[in-house]
Amino acid sequence: MWRSGMVACWWMCVEVCEGGGLVDAVSERRAEVSHRRDSANLLTAAVLLSLTIITVWSFKHRRLICLHETGLAMIYGSLVGVVLRYGVHTEQEVSNVTAVCVLESNPVSLVVNVSGLFYEYTLRGEVNEGDHTLNNEILRKATFDPEVFFNILLPPIIFYAGYSLKQKHFFRNLGSILSYAFVGTLIASFVTGLVMFGCVVVMSKLGQLAGDFFFTDCLFFGAILSATDPVTVLAIFNELKVDVDLYALLFGESVLNDAVAIVLSSSIVAYQPSGHSFEGEAMLASLGLFLGVFSGSFLLGSAAGVLTALLTKFTRLRDFPLLETALFFLMSWSTFLLAEACSITGVVAVLFCGITQAHYTYNNLSTESKKRTKELFELLNFLAENFIFSYMGVTLFSFQHHVFNIVFISGAFLAIFLGRVANIYPLSFLLNLGRANPISSRFQHVMMFAGLRGAMTFALSIRDTSTYARKMMFSTTLIIVFFTVWVCGGGTTPMLTLMNIRVGVEEDQENLVEECVSDRDSAWPFRLWYKFDNNYLKPLLTHTDHPLTHSCCTPLAKCLNTQHTEDDDDDDSELILNNRSTVLYSELCDLSDLSDLSDHSDLSDPSISSNQHTTHSS
Amino acid sequence: MWRSGMVACWWMCVEVCEGGGLVDAVSERRAEVSHRRDSANLLTAAVLLSLTIITVWSFKHRRLICLHETGLAMIYGSLVGVVLRYGVHTEQEVSNVTAVCVLESNPVSLVVNVSGLFYEYTLRGEVNEGDHTLNNEILRKATFDPEVFFNILLPPIIFYAGYSLKQKHFFRNLGSILSYAFVGTLIASFVTGLVMFGCVVVMSKLGQLAGDFFFTDCLFFGAILSATDPVTVLAIFNELKVDVDLYALLFGESVLNDAVAIVLSSSIVAYQPSGHSFEGEAMLASLGLFLGVFSGSFLLGSAAGVLTALLTKFTRLRDFPLLETALFFLMSWSTFLLAEACSITGVVAVLFCGITQAHYTYNNLSTESKKRTKELFELLNFLAENFIFSYMGVTLFSFQHHVFNIVFISGAFLAIFLGRVANIYPLSFLLNLGRANPISSRFQHVMMFAGLRGAMTFALSIRDTSTYARKMMFSTTLIIVFFTVWVCGGGTTPMLTLMNIRVGVEEDQENLVEECVSDRDSAWPFRLWYKFDNNYLKPLLTHTDHPLTHSCCTPLAKCLNTQHTEDDDDDDSELILNNRSTVLYSELCDLSDLSDLSDHSDLSDPSISSNQHTTHSS
Repeated sequence: MWRSGMVACWWMCVEVCEGGGLVDAVSERRAEVSHRRDSANLLTAAVLLSLTIITVWSFKHRRLICLHETGLAMIYGSLVGVVLRYGVHTEQEVSNVTAVCVLESNPVSLVVNVSGLFYEYTLRGEVNEGDHTLNNEILRKATFDPEVFFNILLPPIIFYAGYSLKQKHFFRNLGSILSYAFVGTLIASFVTGLVMFGCVVVMSKLGQLAGDFFFTDCLFFGAILSATDPVTVLAIFNELKVDVDLYALLFGESVLNDAVAIVLSSSIVAYQPSGHSFEGEAMLASLGLFLGVFSGSFLLGSAAGVLTALLTKFTRLRDFPLLETALFFLMSWSTFLLAEACSITGVVAVLFCGITQAHYTYNNLSTESKKRTKELFELLNFLAENFIFSYMGVTLFSFQHHVFNIVFISGAFLAIFLGRVANIYPLSFLLNLGRANPISSRFQHVMMFAGLRGAMTFALSIRDTSTYARKMMFSTTLIIVFFTVWVCGGGTTPMLTLMNIRVGVEEDQENLVEECVSDRDSAWPFRLWYKFDNNYLKPLLTHTDHPLTHSCCTPLAKCLNTQHTEDDDDDDSELILNNRSTVLYSELCDLSDLSDLSDHSDLSDPSISSNQHTTHSS
Repeated sequence: MWRSGMVACWWMCVEVCEGGGLVDAVSERRAEVSHRRDSANLLTAAVLLSLTIITVWSFKHRRLICLHETGLAMIYGSLVGVVLRYGVHTEQEVSNVTAVCVLESNPVSLVVNVSGLFYEYTLRGEVNEGDHTLNNEILRKATFDPEVFFNILLPPIIFYAGYSLKQKHFFRNLGSILSYAFVGTLIASFVTGLVMFGCVVVMSKLGQLAGDFFFTDCLFFGAILSATDPVTVLAIFNELKVDVDLYALLFGESVLNDAVAIVLSSSIVAYQPSGHSFEGEAMLASLGLFLGVFSGSFLLGSAAGVLTALLTKFTRLRDFPLLETALFFLMSWSTFLLAEACSITGVVAVLFCGITQAHYTYNNLSTESKKRTKELFELLNFLAENFIFSYMGVTLFSFQHHVFNIVFISGAFLAIFLGRVANIYPLSFLLNLGRANPISSRFQHVMMFAGLRGAMTFALSIRDTSTYARKMMFSTTLIIVFFTVWVCGGGTTPMLTLMNIRVGVEEDQENLVEECVSDRDSAWPFRLWYKFDNNYLKPLLTHTDHPLTHSCCTPLAKCLNTQHTEDDDDDDSELILNNRSTVLYSELCDLSDLSDLSDHSDLSDPSISSNQHTTHSS
């Protein structure tokens, strides 16, 4: 008998190397083969993206804008998936040899003693029982670690979304946006979860369930499906210059509800009742977690933005655009890392960091850096987004544990439809009671239609595919994303025509003044915030014409004012690539000084990835 | 008795988790802790870089340019290293538990069966016997995988170096640059290797060697020390506007010799005589490897550049700068990946890709994309470079197996001095026999002095620190890099004054014409190349005023001409951030059409990271 602390290891596979002396050379060769395969995988991705770019160009060149580049990326990805699945035969190579070892626990790092040499192994994650049988090695190797999405690909996408939130319209519709994003997303996710639970009950009656599917799984599914995607529809909106308020509502909602979906889904996963029944205490703990993580991420993200604003205000880094851009990038990335190091959600922190950077720091940057930061994050966003959508196409075929069930898929479509209905229409009705400028029913129909699912839903569903329920969710999610991107994305232009939504809106100052008088979100907390922001935060954190000393005349306020506004030699506002002038609500409402409209520059370009394309072609 | 194929595993550490049901939760917690630690490590790096940026700004602000930012990055890195080494006490956490397992071989992936659940582990590398005893866990965790340097950090640095090679002066001095970079580097590395072997023999006589140190180790050390760094000195050169030919010689040499050093060092590692004596056959095999890898990387890199040039020439991607920039980035990155997948050297391929992109593709890009690509790679280069130099500072203290030997270090300084002497002076003498404009002895002294060692030497030396010899080399390399960056880097300005080198050189057309007549490298292969490039390659690959039909009037040539030169609405050459106009040798020598000097735009800004800083401050 082996004592505890001593367990046995079995080799499941025939080892090629026998002699001890050869071990080193063989292991080097293996590491090399593995590195070559990783390079080849990334190369496939890079070539896919390049192909997508060329095709997108030829589409744009022929003025075909019905299908967004993300849709194309998915098609190319699917083709590669098909080739990987059916075209490539696996060869058993020396690098594929996998030892199976039985231990009592799974430490993060494992040191293996091979004939006196020690090799370190790191935990990659749990694998399914069937996976280590070495079939379809190539498919398995073509699989990226799901955490790559959360740690590398999503942050730039979400940061860019925050950074390019159309400031004025966003803040003017803040109340409505927050309602849709928080209350609406919660409603949608619970409705979806409930409908799915009904569906699961029916399936289990029909005997179609081959594994466990708990109520919490349904709620989790509801949470991940509630994240609507800002990419596809809004690119089209932007190209067509759709009504700015509709744009702001949809964009604001889809950006913020990503954050809600992440935190909500992780709170649901953390909900672990001690028994199998529903428990109030665990529920409260989950709710606490939700609020804690959300507010923590919010505070951290905003704090990082404020710190960057102060750094850029009180140094003359703006004289060196490269340093300034690098600092901006590093501070934003640090936000993500700090949040992850503190066990709160980096992606959510990065979103609020992006919003704060756009609202304050952006105004302190040099003209050069404004352009550089925008272009840098635009590029990162473009690459990350298209990579995710290509990869979705690949996994449609390369994922080896798909569970497609027609009842479940139909149920899911019904569920997201009902969830969206329960989000948009009742909330719009309630919001219209308070709004000076009501959200018309045509707008509501478009918002209903434009609730695509995209990168965030995919990333949340691929994160864990260990159980039967999760596998089925993942497969269904892929179908939903494909359907909504192709059908709803492609149908946006006809939908806008059908709903008679005005396009080609060019905003002018007159329009602004008119809109300002009939302010939209007139609830007092927002008014209060606008005043506070305009009178204290903006003067404190940015170079502005409306210095802190206007509001309070303490010596501290004087010392916090910078002289840059006086000796500033470059005009920040003129070079922004946007002809819609951007002014903050409260500044506008101070009708007395409409003359300095253009002095308050904000990140005004509402682009989500394709706006830059049009500047040259027109 | 256990049969073969069955080996035993021993737990070396007390495991916290006992029950099987807890395994999953514990492993999740461990993965989380590990992720948090990774985030914290990256956060440290990001904060270090931010601090460096702020300090660099305050230095520049006060016009102190004696110390380059890389020097500062090293200082900050050292401080962090000291804190890690002496300030942080390791806490034994659940995540640190390392199982030691005895196997017969070390596969790339290992599947561990823990109570019926399977976990996959991937090979991280060989560790030293003492390392798994869990001492100094934090120091070990703060160590990045050396392959990160080769796969993530070096490619953008090297690409940027190639992309910003000062075209005209580079090509005009091509013969001399190639001589220094190839012949000179080979001489330097063998001289250094021989001197080090002498030093090792003396040390072994003195009984100061605690392990093996073979002749091939000495040659390897010579090879890695022969890579001079373009960063520090040239930033100063650029700021001071030092003589352009001196600049081109030094920059061209230091960029190309990085490639030589990589390929040479890997060929020396591959040199494995069957006995212990010197063997002709193995030597020839190594030489073949050297030539094969070098020419393969050269061909692959150039081919990728040419492909990108054709893509950008024959599509109107230039209408969409975002797509164009993304394609440019992806194609350049693909070069690296393809080279790695083919087992040739990605970093070298990327260098030639960068040169080709600058020479051809750059001319096809839209004005917007020219700026974007330059700024993007400038930023990536800045971040990667400063990260490497910070990390050097960290490893000076955090690396746990330093072998500092005063005799070896003194020997190494003598060796690199002699190696550089044997490179510069004899070669310059020979080159001056053929050059119309000889390299003055003052230039030679500056070239001698400016042979700093930097990122490449560090990356090559940290790649493998498994043996005693490699450890000693690594420690010595750190000392050499620190010394050369601080002393030689800091002493550049006084050196230039001492040598009476002209600074503040602003080139004008008159000067160009004069220089053109007295062409420098008049060897026939270069003349032939200039002609071929100008008459066939440039017209084929770029939009140019000198179309292919001028040289040959076939229908094919006509179809390869694009109409862009005619209907081109934006002038490429004017917006480049450089007031030194750049014209190719052969175009200049065609004195008849000096009028279109500014139409042949090249990547003309010779900046290596700090030139942008000055544009605003002046």
